[in-house]
Amino acid sequence: MTGLLAGLRVVEGSAFVAAPLGGMTLAQLGADVIRFDQVGGGLDHGRWPLSPEGRSLFWAGLNKGKRSVQLDLRRPEGQELVQALVAAPGPGAGLFLTNFPARGWLSYERLKARREDLVMVALTGNPDGSSEVDYTVNPASGFPMATGPRDTSGPVNSLLPAWDVAMGTLAAVGLLAAERQRTLTGQGRLVSLSLSDVAFAMVGNLGRIAEAQLDGHDQPKDGNYLYGAFGSDFATREGRRVMVVALTARQWSSLVDATGIRAACDAIQQATGHDLETESGRYDARDILAAILRPWFAARELAEVGSAFIGTGVSWGPYQSFRQLITEDPRCSEANPMFAQLHQPGIGTYLAPRSPLDVGDDANLVVAPAPALGEHTEQVLAEVLGLSPGQIGDLFDRGLAAPATDLAGA
Amino acid sequence: MTGLLAGLRVVEGSAFVAAPLGGMTLAQLGADVIRFDQVGGGLDHGRWPLSPEGRSLFWAGLNKGKRSVQLDLRRPEGQELVQALVAAPGPGAGLFLTNFPARGWLSYERLKARREDLVMVALTGNPDGSSEVDYTVNPASGFPMATGPRDTSGPVNSLLPAWDVAMGTLAAVGLLAAERQRTLTGQGRLVSLSLSDVAFAMVGNLGRIAEAQLDGHDQPKDGNYLYGAFGSDFATREGRRVMVVALTARQWSSLVDATGIRAACDAIQQATGHDLETESGRYDARDILAAILRPWFAARELAEVGSAFIGTGVSWGPYQSFRQLITEDPRCSEANPMFAQLHQPGIGTYLAPRSPLDVGDDANLVVAPAPALGEHTEQVLAEVLGLSPGQIGDLFDRGLAAPATDLAGA
Repeated sequence: MTGLLAGLRVVEGSAFVAAPLGGMTLAQLGADVIRFDQVGGGLDHGRWPLSPEGRSLFWAGLNKGKRSVQLDLRRPEGQELVQALVAAPGPGAGLFLTNFPARGWLSYERLKARREDLVMVALTGNPDGSSEVDYTVNPASGFPMATGPRDTSGPVNSLLPAWDVAMGTLAAVGLLAAERQRTLTGQGRLVSLSLSDVAFAMVGNLGRIAEAQLDGHDQPKDGNYLYGAFGSDFATREGRRVMVVALTARQWSSLVDATGIRAACDAIQQATGHDLETESGRYDARDILAAILRPWFAARELAEVGSAFIGTGVSWGPYQSFRQLITEDPRCSEANPMFAQLHQPGIGTYLAPRSPLDVGDDANLVVAPAPALGEHTEQVLAEVLGLSPGQIGDLFDRGLAAPATDLAGA
Repeated sequence: MTGLLAGLRVVEGSAFVAAPLGGMTLAQLGADVIRFDQVGGGLDHGRWPLSPEGRSLFWAGLNKGKRSVQLDLRRPEGQELVQALVAAPGPGAGLFLTNFPARGWLSYERLKARREDLVMVALTGNPDGSSEVDYTVNPASGFPMATGPRDTSGPVNSLLPAWDVAMGTLAAVGLLAAERQRTLTGQGRLVSLSLSDVAFAMVGNLGRIAEAQLDGHDQPKDGNYLYGAFGSDFATREGRRVMVVALTARQWSSLVDATGIRAACDAIQQATGHDLETESGRYDARDILAAILRPWFAARELAEVGSAFIGTGVSWGPYQSFRQLITEDPRCSEANPMFAQLHQPGIGTYLAPRSPLDVGDDANLVVAPAPALGEHTEQVLAEVLGLSPGQIGDLFDRGLAAPATDLAGA
């Protein structure tokens, strides 16, 4: 194993997005990440999207580059095997990342009793340990009520589980920070992270809590306009859509020049008093500016818009469906070294990413497939716990552990 | 300074969300993060949301707990000061996080010449170094075209800059991973991360690239339904909204029991053939299930819904505006130890979060305010570069550096 984090071994007990993503973030940087699941698969083993044959593309996507063991977590002997994996010796081991309930046999106290310097990152829904998922936290965050076209009511959910994504990545930060301190001091640690805290902290970080508190009013829905500067979407002649953003003076002046609206802007500024040299002035004038710009885009096809903006400082981009992303955008193709056509056993061959962190050629990892469920049960039990083939065979016979079970379609 | 990352010193050259968030993620775990800006403030110094007096709540939110120096970055002497800060000696120093163009005087090569073991995390819009912001990358990701009510056309932008959030957190992962390897090997490293890679990698991780590629079709807009399981929003009697999700068998059975729809579900299963014991079956039957559940919610006020679900395994949550979040949700209040009422000089007092990573009482940091621009110019120049009061005074006189300039409103 190569990569920046070679030498680290992380045991992961997980399901769904955040914890698996946290583990994969580390695995794609070279850590040995061992995910354990209930024999037959955990709660996310069949999560959509699915392949045409009904296998989970979600599971395959979020577990790339890990090792998989399947154990019977419902019996004490299976729980004992998990505890032994978590507490196995080694300077880069003793790292546990989980969104399973951290109580009973998986409590920090019980695990720490087996390895004093354990680093455990425990993910929960709420700080009190109660359950919550992205799709129930996001409604509480305020964003869905402020999303969507003007003059509509009702929330608009995001399809992207953005809080799960932030939480998974932050879990990796917490693990690395605690592991660093363990190296310096010899002390392990429990790091706790809740999904609602991740979401509400970010609402605060982005200034939305302070705004609601100090201003005392809520932001109304404002369609696809950018907040506090000029940004809007436009339809092209053939009915495609583009987003155009001017956050900086240079971006604004480039847009004005490229679309030839300088004289119109001067006239508007005189007639309305909006100071178009400021972000706030452009924001206040956004409806007028969008109306002035709209015919320019409506008269051009997407390719013409692109040509007109080449070499200018205009900040813009086309809207793409998922299909258009993979068929039209070279950034999402093998032309981008982050991507490779991956053969995922049991599913097929498709484009898949390594870590977006480009750490230099010598340490870059290839795009690795997800394991089959239980693919490494035997290997891990032998290598990490030192079990003999006879002992492992006995565990298999008793159903306490299982080898790979779903490679049939490979 | 206490905290897990005490002893690390990170120099940050940044604007907007991702790079400042990356630095703040480290600062809130105890790292000494020194943000440098052009005298008078960078491109994000006035970014919305604003306080009633017109100060940036965004800047205050994303720079909490850092030190701030302001220098004239346009003159060689100011650039020399930045290079000296980045390359200053010390085992925990030599760490540079930036989204400024990493070329010329800020290129990795030039900086590495001054400190061989430099760790530099360079953020860009696209992998080729060209510019891109969340609001132009997100349209390309596929998500806005699949978001919004059924039977509507046109994209729906997200108000949350989710890719910026993911990128900032991932930048912290990259810095910690590279710093860890430097400790082990003595070798520094350039870590590059682009916003489009962050977004498109996640599209792949979530299975959306594989789905589009293997299925060959695009996902249509589907309102607020959850994809591939049962999840829907409902209106309550007083017109509030709630989101209800059943990702697991237990969540589904709890919902069925709590709302008393068991008999109706059995009848539907018989009449339609949908297997409501499976996630896919419940997803296929989502319109029918939502229609059956709707009267139950419409007959109850939000508080009654909450009471009915207490102690059940139902996964649900209310929709809240930003105002409702801070006035109705105890998780977003001082009852949650992550939050404190923060006095931010020049702005006022409001609720602000520390890191959502709870690393244990002994290492937890308090919620720290953002610095005034240039608040630490003198301190940092003296402490890190060893400049004398006379030398610093000379830099101030020549406009190459400036002390705090905007504390007037404090």
